[in-house]
Amino acid sequence: MSFDPESLVYDDRGLIPCIAQQEGTGEVLMMAWMNAESVAKTLETRRVTYWSRSRKSFWIKGETSGHTQELVDLRLDCDRDCLLAVVRQTGAACHTNRRSCFYTSVSSGNEIELMKPMAD
Amino acid sequence: MSFDPESLVYDDRGLIPCIAQQEGTGEVLMMAWMNAESVAKTLETRRVTYWSRSRKSFWIKGETSGHTQELVDLRLDCDRDCLLAVVRQTGAACHTNRRSCFYTSVSSGNEIELMKPMAD
Repeated sequence: MSFDPESLVYDDRGLIPCIAQQEGTGEVLMMAWMNAESVAKTLETRRVTYWSRSRKSFWIKGETSGHTQELVDLRLDCDRDCLLAVVRQTGAACHTNRRSCFYTSVSSGNEIELMKPMAD
Repeated sequence: MSFDPESLVYDDRGLIPCIAQQEGTGEVLMMAWMNAESVAKTLETRRVTYWSRSRKSFWIKGETSGHTQELVDLRLDCDRDCLLAVVRQTGAACHTNRRSCFYTSVSSGNEIELMKPMAD
């Protein structure tokens, strides 16, 4: 069955969430948003390209920081309203320079920092 | 720093996306939504409890199917607008009886089924 980005289910802003996961380790790196055109660009270029809600523009991950995400596999869920991008992440995925955005754990009612920023 | 579910960033429906990931294997199982009260319930009961947008009610994962998610760790991202639940999944996470909802891959412009429904 051929894939059409328009066949995904987008929210009322025309966006779909995309989870980025590191190939091999399975680490969940981040979650950001795509529109139909950024889904198409990601598949064409194999460079993960989100839609920046704040800047209202395409966000080619790592274009300025060098912390790129090379697409290994793009998957969709059963409801076609969420994407999973399996990627090869260069450096930190998080803007805080941590490998993953999910560096805070809730433990016994407290927030615990699980990882430090990476060395430059 | 003590954790308050109200300190998370919810969308205009009062919801935050939550990614469920299998402990150990790192497999991404599904993504669903929580409100502040379901975050609190999840932490209290250690049973992952989403908010069903269609039924407009709490959705204790596996309550009818038996395919429960036992909470191992709840994490939040840098923007506090996405959650990652590390879980022990019993059986299938997906309503199609597949282990993960992300069973469809986009490959060379086609949709490929990566996994079959689990045996009952």
